[in-house]
Amino acid sequence: MSRPLLRSLLGMVASGLTLAAPALAAAAGWLALPEQAPAPADNPVTEAKVRLGKALYFDPRLSSTGTVSCNSCHNVMAGGEDGRPTSVGVGGQIGGRNAPTVWNAAFHPVQFWDGRAASLEEQALGPVTNPIEMGLPSLDVLVERLKALGYEPMFREAFGGDSPVTADNFAKAVASFERTLVTPGSPFDRWVMGERGAMTEQQVRGYERFRALGCAGCHTGPLFGARPEAPFQKFPVFADSPYVERYGLAKDTGRHEVTKRPEDRHLFRVPTLRNVAVTAPYFHNGAVATLDEAVRVMASTQLGRTLSERDVADIVAFLQALTGPFPSIEAPRLPVPVGRSVAFD
Amino acid sequence: MSRPLLRSLLGMVASGLTLAAPALAAAAGWLALPEQAPAPADNPVTEAKVRLGKALYFDPRLSSTGTVSCNSCHNVMAGGEDGRPTSVGVGGQIGGRNAPTVWNAAFHPVQFWDGRAASLEEQALGPVTNPIEMGLPSLDVLVERLKALGYEPMFREAFGGDSPVTADNFAKAVASFERTLVTPGSPFDRWVMGERGAMTEQQVRGYERFRALGCAGCHTGPLFGARPEAPFQKFPVFADSPYVERYGLAKDTGRHEVTKRPEDRHLFRVPTLRNVAVTAPYFHNGAVATLDEAVRVMASTQLGRTLSERDVADIVAFLQALTGPFPSIEAPRLPVPVGRSVAFD
Repeated sequence: MSRPLLRSLLGMVASGLTLAAPALAAAAGWLALPEQAPAPADNPVTEAKVRLGKALYFDPRLSSTGTVSCNSCHNVMAGGEDGRPTSVGVGGQIGGRNAPTVWNAAFHPVQFWDGRAASLEEQALGPVTNPIEMGLPSLDVLVERLKALGYEPMFREAFGGDSPVTADNFAKAVASFERTLVTPGSPFDRWVMGERGAMTEQQVRGYERFRALGCAGCHTGPLFGARPEAPFQKFPVFADSPYVERYGLAKDTGRHEVTKRPEDRHLFRVPTLRNVAVTAPYFHNGAVATLDEAVRVMASTQLGRTLSERDVADIVAFLQALTGPFPSIEAPRLPVPVGRSVAFD
Repeated sequence: MSRPLLRSLLGMVASGLTLAAPALAAAAGWLALPEQAPAPADNPVTEAKVRLGKALYFDPRLSSTGTVSCNSCHNVMAGGEDGRPTSVGVGGQIGGRNAPTVWNAAFHPVQFWDGRAASLEEQALGPVTNPIEMGLPSLDVLVERLKALGYEPMFREAFGGDSPVTADNFAKAVASFERTLVTPGSPFDRWVMGERGAMTEQQVRGYERFRALGCAGCHTGPLFGARPEAPFQKFPVFADSPYVERYGLAKDTGRHEVTKRPEDRHLFRVPTLRNVAVTAPYFHNGAVATLDEAVRVMASTQLGRTLSERDVADIVAFLQALTGPFPSIEAPRLPVPVGRSVAFD
């Protein structure tokens, strides 16, 4: 048995999963991120949808002021977020939670920190009409704006039909573009597929500590994130950790704010660790500025442990092996109405 | 003599220029936009500078809040501006003048509506420390921020030396990228180079009216903009035009606000008409929403004339022949500090 295969199997065990014997041979790379993100049956990815979705994703004119696009807070030129603790929407308003990276979001079983959207399609419409994000008064206004900006031909190309410009199709196109925002081929992926030198010795050691400590119990699968059958975990588990007060980690009750059920207090969708090294600051409130401190916080609040500084450094090194590579993206040409402007707030 | 050559010569005459006989043969396309923008001797365009400059241009983390980049107000995915009357800077603050298009800005003899920067290099530093634009407290903070974000290797590659991260080099890199933002090959360019069908009959008629009315007296040369030896013109000339009050065109005294000299009251750098059809709304205050109204305003305030609606439509059609084509731009990968965040306001 090759060492990567052994490592993969160890990883599976650490993740609490088992595989039947016939699946073993195919299992060597099961922790490598797939090249393709899954798409729902009613929204297969097509070139025309991706082209449209990319334009929509980058278009700030779809906000009330004409200044905030999807990419403003989920910047694909960087780590897929904005580097701020929490994001800035229209009129300089500041949001309540850290922008999750859009990279590999297509693999999440649910969307948002509180999992309130079941799909990328459902997620895509949220910020557009959120008054402190993109701030449009309604999805009807979105549709009017899309028509005024000249998007109709691109919608027709992507969806056909007589009235292709709809909020649903907007969501489908944005989701289709987001399904292209995946980063297979990281050092970890290459290593787990058998390329021995792809991770440093320290990174391998960090991966072993990551599994042995139990981190992989929540950060599961190729995404090192939420598992579909149980996407939420409590955070913080150890509420008496000194980090909880220091970083204000228990102020936000997470999923409970959506469901109002007592059992959902402080449940959050497990974030992916893919590209975590380039998405500081950390946690739902973005209160922790560095990855090493984030690792200390997690050990303390989730495992009730204080790690050695060597363990912290090794795990941070491993987490850096989950970065990129990022696909090149040609900046879209946005449609522009000829000889007339659109009214913004 | 070919008709396009004849047209070009007519254009020159309308622009008040004459050429000696030996230059005539080479003159057919002199009104076509050059493929290359000029660069100063101390800042030749190089690939490394353009690559760096593009990243800087798109990087919102160079603003106090991490939310406003050059591209926020001068969006190269669209008409090179933001489609707003005036732009939004950090904290939702609203500026005083319409963002000029960055497309072909490299051909302007001076920069800004009031011409207060003599070069792209000088212009590039203005918005960074303008408190209502990108809002950094000083250029020293810019340099610290650039280092914190991990830009040093890109600066070294572009400029060499031991301490390449300087505000001057920032400006040189951004200017180098902007020199690539040129749009030769528009329908007008192709027509003036002899491609008879490149403009419609209406566009040719509009061009003839444009010259006959005297528009080309100020909107000169391939840029249809300011001439180097006299970049400023008074606006409005006819202060009693009803449009002046309707659109508040005389509130801003333009270059006078920089020099405080009485003779500079209401002088503005002549804007380019390249891509004017995709840069609504119009004028220094962005008060006019449509191109046809902008043409009426110009005829009234600058020429003291009321145009027929046919003339307006023909001139608008001609102006549309000055649009694009826009070069494709690969979105830059921005450097991201590994495992740590930068502090934003």
